[in-house]
Amino acid sequence: MSSTYGEHLKLSIFGQSHGAAIGMTLDGIPAGLAVDAERLQAFLNRRAPGQADFATPRKEEDKPEFLAGIVNGFTCGAPIAAIIHNTNTRSGDYANLKDCPRPGHADLTAQLKYGGYQDAAGGGHFSGRLTAPLCIAGGLCMQWLEKMGVRIAAHITMCGSVTDNPIFLDWAKPDLDAIGKDFPVLNPKAGEEMRAAIAKAKANGDSVGGLIECVITGLPAGLGEPMFGGMEGRIAQIVYGIPAVKGLEFGTGFSGSYMRGSENNDSYCIEDGHVRTKRNYAGGILGGITNGMPLVFQAAIKPTPSIAKPQQSISLSRMQTQTLQIQGRHDPCIVPRAVPVIEAAAAIAVYDAYLSQTNRR
Amino acid sequence: MSSTYGEHLKLSIFGQSHGAAIGMTLDGIPAGLAVDAERLQAFLNRRAPGQADFATPRKEEDKPEFLAGIVNGFTCGAPIAAIIHNTNTRSGDYANLKDCPRPGHADLTAQLKYGGYQDAAGGGHFSGRLTAPLCIAGGLCMQWLEKMGVRIAAHITMCGSVTDNPIFLDWAKPDLDAIGKDFPVLNPKAGEEMRAAIAKAKANGDSVGGLIECVITGLPAGLGEPMFGGMEGRIAQIVYGIPAVKGLEFGTGFSGSYMRGSENNDSYCIEDGHVRTKRNYAGGILGGITNGMPLVFQAAIKPTPSIAKPQQSISLSRMQTQTLQIQGRHDPCIVPRAVPVIEAAAAIAVYDAYLSQTNRR
Amino acid sequence: MSSTYGEHLKLSIFGQSHGAAIGMTLDGIPAGLAVDAERLQAFLNRRAPGQADFATPRKEEDKPEFLAGIVNGFTCGAPIAAIIHNTNTRSGDYANLKDCPRPGHADLTAQLKYGGYQDAAGGGHFSGRLTAPLCIAGGLCMQWLEKMGVRIAAHITMCGSVTDNPIFLDWAKPDLDAIGKDFPVLNPKAGEEMRAAIAKAKANGDSVGGLIECVITGLPAGLGEPMFGGMEGRIAQIVYGIPAVKGLEFGTGFSGSYMRGSENNDSYCIEDGHVRTKRNYAGGILGGITNGMPLVFQAAIKPTPSIAKPQQSISLSRMQTQTLQIQGRHDPCIVPRAVPVIEAAAAIAVYDAYLSQTNRR
Amino acid sequence: MSSTYGEHLKLSIFGQSHGAAIGMTLDGIPAGLAVDAERLQAFLNRRAPGQADFATPRKEEDKPEFLAGIVNGFTCGAPIAAIIHNTNTRSGDYANLKDCPRPGHADLTAQLKYGGYQDAAGGGHFSGRLTAPLCIAGGLCMQWLEKMGVRIAAHITMCGSVTDNPIFLDWAKPDLDAIGKDFPVLNPKAGEEMRAAIAKAKANGDSVGGLIECVITGLPAGLGEPMFGGMEGRIAQIVYGIPAVKGLEFGTGFSGSYMRGSENNDSYCIEDGHVRTKRNYAGGILGGITNGMPLVFQAAIKPTPSIAKPQQSISLSRMQTQTLQIQGRHDPCIVPRAVPVIEAAAAIAVYDAYLSQTNRR
Repeated sequence: MSSTYGEHLKLSIFGQSHGAAIGMTLDGIPAGLAVDAERLQAFLNRRAPGQADFATPRKEEDKPEFLAGIVNGFTCGAPIAAIIHNTNTRSGDYANLKDCPRPGHADLTAQLKYGGYQDAAGGGHFSGRLTAPLCIAGGLCMQWLEKMGVRIAAHITMCGSVTDNPIFLDWAKPDLDAIGKDFPVLNPKAGEEMRAAIAKAKANGDSVGGLIECVITGLPAGLGEPMFGGMEGRIAQIVYGIPAVKGLEFGTGFSGSYMRGSENNDSYCIEDGHVRTKRNYAGGILGGITNGMPLVFQAAIKPTPSIAKPQQSISLSRMQTQTLQIQGRHDPCIVPRAVPVIEAAAAIAVYDAYLSQTNRR
Repeated sequence: MSSTYGEHLKLSIFGQSHGAAIGMTLDGIPAGLAVDAERLQAFLNRRAPGQADFATPRKEEDKPEFLAGIVNGFTCGAPIAAIIHNTNTRSGDYANLKDCPRPGHADLTAQLKYGGYQDAAGGGHFSGRLTAPLCIAGGLCMQWLEKMGVRIAAHITMCGSVTDNPIFLDWAKPDLDAIGKDFPVLNPKAGEEMRAAIAKAKANGDSVGGLIECVITGLPAGLGEPMFGGMEGRIAQIVYGIPAVKGLEFGTGFSGSYMRGSENNDSYCIEDGHVRTKRNYAGGILGGITNGMPLVFQAAIKPTPSIAKPQQSISLSRMQTQTLQIQGRHDPCIVPRAVPVIEAAAAIAVYDAYLSQTNRR
Repeated sequence: MSSTYGEHLKLSIFGQSHGAAIGMTLDGIPAGLAVDAERLQAFLNRRAPGQADFATPRKEEDKPEFLAGIVNGFTCGAPIAAIIHNTNTRSGDYANLKDCPRPGHADLTAQLKYGGYQDAAGGGHFSGRLTAPLCIAGGLCMQWLEKMGVRIAAHITMCGSVTDNPIFLDWAKPDLDAIGKDFPVLNPKAGEEMRAAIAKAKANGDSVGGLIECVITGLPAGLGEPMFGGMEGRIAQIVYGIPAVKGLEFGTGFSGSYMRGSENNDSYCIEDGHVRTKRNYAGGILGGITNGMPLVFQAAIKPTPSIAKPQQSISLSRMQTQTLQIQGRHDPCIVPRAVPVIEAAAAIAVYDAYLSQTNRR
Repeated sequence: MSSTYGEHLKLSIFGQSHGAAIGMTLDGIPAGLAVDAERLQAFLNRRAPGQADFATPRKEEDKPEFLAGIVNGFTCGAPIAAIIHNTNTRSGDYANLKDCPRPGHADLTAQLKYGGYQDAAGGGHFSGRLTAPLCIAGGLCMQWLEKMGVRIAAHITMCGSVTDNPIFLDWAKPDLDAIGKDFPVLNPKAGEEMRAAIAKAKANGDSVGGLIECVITGLPAGLGEPMFGGMEGRIAQIVYGIPAVKGLEFGTGFSGSYMRGSENNDSYCIEDGHVRTKRNYAGGILGGITNGMPLVFQAAIKPTPSIAKPQQSISLSRMQTQTLQIQGRHDPCIVPRAVPVIEAAAAIAVYDAYLSQTNRR
């Protein structure tokens, strides 16, 4: 485990925020799959910082350099390796974080676990920057899934306490193209309010969190395995690897727990000669296995812990409380940038489940 | 993956609801650990059916027979294997489920995946009965964790739309002994109302779901690994292996997404010479790694899909809709019985994380 | 790892020689595969003790009881579990082995590793008896491979310093039916001499070892993965799990190291429209991947360490040398009984490689 | 599996011979371990080509660039990533190898497996060049093992049919410093004859193979797990990942199979208050677990398949035989360069076994 994911695929993520480079290796990919570098770059740009008012003004290029596994635009069967060189390295901004950990961050737990040897600069290996290589792997898997008719799209359902409406779970046939290009919501007006809420938090030296719904259409029925190999567990393991995710639900999830069985069960019907469910409260998964309906899940993103407001921390050397004022520029809200990361994680989990299935012959 | 869990531990669960036996093997356990068979049986009895008004009246003995790995009351270093013989096998109750799948169940997905070869009787390998061997493994891990000062306790925070109050997350020092012995809630009055809600659903031929909060105290700081080896992902993979779990959150989870950073961040303080947080909104985990505070998570359990009320299903052979009336006796609510299962899953995940840690020397 | 094997398959072996039962679980098997219980029993009988003059006179039934995973003679997609109850349990024969370890056995290393908690009776988890569940798993995999046109056969090439001739490696098209039914050699005369050598060793209170060659025909080209996923490494990991195996070579192996490249390289030719090699010095594997020729390997089995002759050992409690006279009846040679075990191990490795292959679509 | 190795460690090797870079990621390493870059470079130089008369005259720098996981000369707990840029890329030398595969190489099997998408240049991912990143990982593990008192050393026991004498297996206390610095043999005279044999083969446009013995001293007793987690299987899986290895034996291995039990069993004795064996025919392993004696194994390296002599191959496009004359300069013998690679593989396997052990507390 650790920074390695996958059953058939072996994804390995490496790098620290201010190290020489971040990157990933991805083993277990079939040979002969086309790689569209431009589309991958467009996908990565959705995650990259410095692209909008709500994001950190740090400007970094997330341009992957492929070292291995791709020849003349096709996978060659050998492990894929890609790196992104860090241009923004080793500033002095983080000098005192080993002694005075930021509340809500991994600073303290890294110090306790690694005894001071951890790379504290920029959050080191715990930085959200590590989601860039995750997006390389996910962006590739997404291209290959699309060739099989599978589409993955996520959008913000809540941000800064502003909720969007409707959500994909309510749609019999979700329209993935309805997601806003500038700001990933279904209802543009909700998007405007969310941006206002982010701006307001920023002005207060504070931050906000949100919810992201992800839908996967075109999945064959029968994907996933019983028990610990179920789609929920597979997706959870990788989605919880994204910093700031603290909750995850499938289909009606938490609200389904308040329903009665007769309400939460999806009745079956026949549609175009296929078994379908009338609604999709199960989020496309029964017994851990896809049922042919869209797979729908929602992730809870906590508010960015790095805030400008002074906070109470401690000095580990002096073992006494100390006020901490975090320097540097930070996202007042990472939810918009987390949207493609959630898609990437879902793509990797689904493609791995596809390649791992026992009954594939 | 599939029915196998663990990084250092290798837990394998096998069996079908109405097969000869269900069981588990557990590899990777150190030698010389004491096994208290009586305490294990008492733990298993909390999950066993037929013990209360709200559960199925089927009366089954969940008495494990240890085949290997334990000698004279101590682990011997070899894999542990235990089985529970099924006494309640192959009734005709489930004869038509391959053709007419129960809404909300794995009947359909199993049929689509296994092409009719699956063991449909009693839900086969997808049955909640498979949580019994999970509880054997978890009950053992719990005993060994207790020797290390770790305690795990879960309780119902909501059932049939009745909520309990307070919850562990609100307590600086949660009192695990405050959980009711007859019905696992903190506030006995809420428990009474929950039981009434279950009884009412049952009278209606319906079912209810609920929420379960689990707290783990006494954990050392530094447990868990970065990214995909974080405590959230480890716990999620096993908890989502429990049938009916559709949501999972850590600390403030979904509600934390509605907060601002200044509100959701836990400030640090010094207590008895240790770094602590004033509150525990992070649920004891930062960057995937335990911070020394209690680990707190909440799981969402969907309402039991097997209900007496007629439901719309389909006939797969005739490919047309059909009304289904499920025969047999089913739990109108599995939430109370799921409480020890959640504890067991947490115990396995935590003990595996403990044995897997890189910096253990 | 430990007692768990497989990439796609998850095989778990459990049990101790004199415990309640030994057994195995096998996860990852497709649904709908036929199981011929009679043929499996015939295969297991080849390994069972007490069947011939050269084997131990202990008479044990190796009759598997299937607990899960098989319904009406077909795999159901759930993990397969099978056990063999031990009838021959807990004799006093092994009482002093914790203090006075048998040379060449795991007695000492088990004591050092498990600190006295190990199950010493009959060698515990280190006993050759654990190859019985390996043969259950392997016997099943062999049946499924045969449906795909793959055949696996092993025979003794050397025993008690008597060598058989010719060997499969020398045959362009090895005739697997040429192996003796009573005693697995190609040349019956060599077999008689081997049995005489075993009898002579037994009369001297001593034991002999031998070599086993295994050939796998009908394999598709392209099986196996680069580097650590190569066929050699896959087979080696499971074959070295068989007690007493101390050497393994593929194709010309050790003798190939003495050749020149021009001699050891197999020239290509075309045969019936397929690429073939003129000889098969590579043993059917190039770059870890099958080339369509028979896969051939040879395993070295050490002489049984349990011998009647007095040997010099030590007393661990008194930390001084001590003469050990091993009681009980032991195989003067396990090589004949190891032949089906080698086949079983090969079958599991090959079937796992087949199910794991990346380019299977 | 595939290009990923390890139980606790996760080693991932990537790259193709003529791609942009080759490299490795290594996850699961404790924080705070010192890295001596100079000693690592010295170790890598032992493998690098162009350093002696018997090796290929291609001159490549094997200078690793560390991208992640090491800060100020110490491991930081995050995955280690290192690459070596390829300077010698995409020549035309290999243009026709997809159609006319080299006998003894992976050219054919790669073509059959990957359908022409493989990177054929320089052998692609199957190239011996991929042992350079293996040596980075192994060189690091070796440094950390040395801090624990473990030493690993390999030497040539046979090359070009010339044998060295004595071998480590015969020594009660092997003197690792007795290995020649210029040419890794124990007896310099044998080394001279081996070099002559290599030169002679080269003059004939041919190649030779050899045997390499590796010894590991200072290992604690109790390392390794039963069955598939035994030291033999762990070492075998990684050693067989090295191109050209076709045989592997532990202790007396193949020759031990010709002995009687009374001869092959190592008697116990007491030495300086520790249990030792009088000889070390078991190669330091009993039941898969180290017994405190030096671990000794021998690997068989086949003669380099790339030879200047014309060979019979085929044209895959025309499906007819064709004479192949391999262009370019190739090692007439890779055995000397394989010595540090064997050491590296052993170091990784041993360090992984150390970090994986169940009874480590």
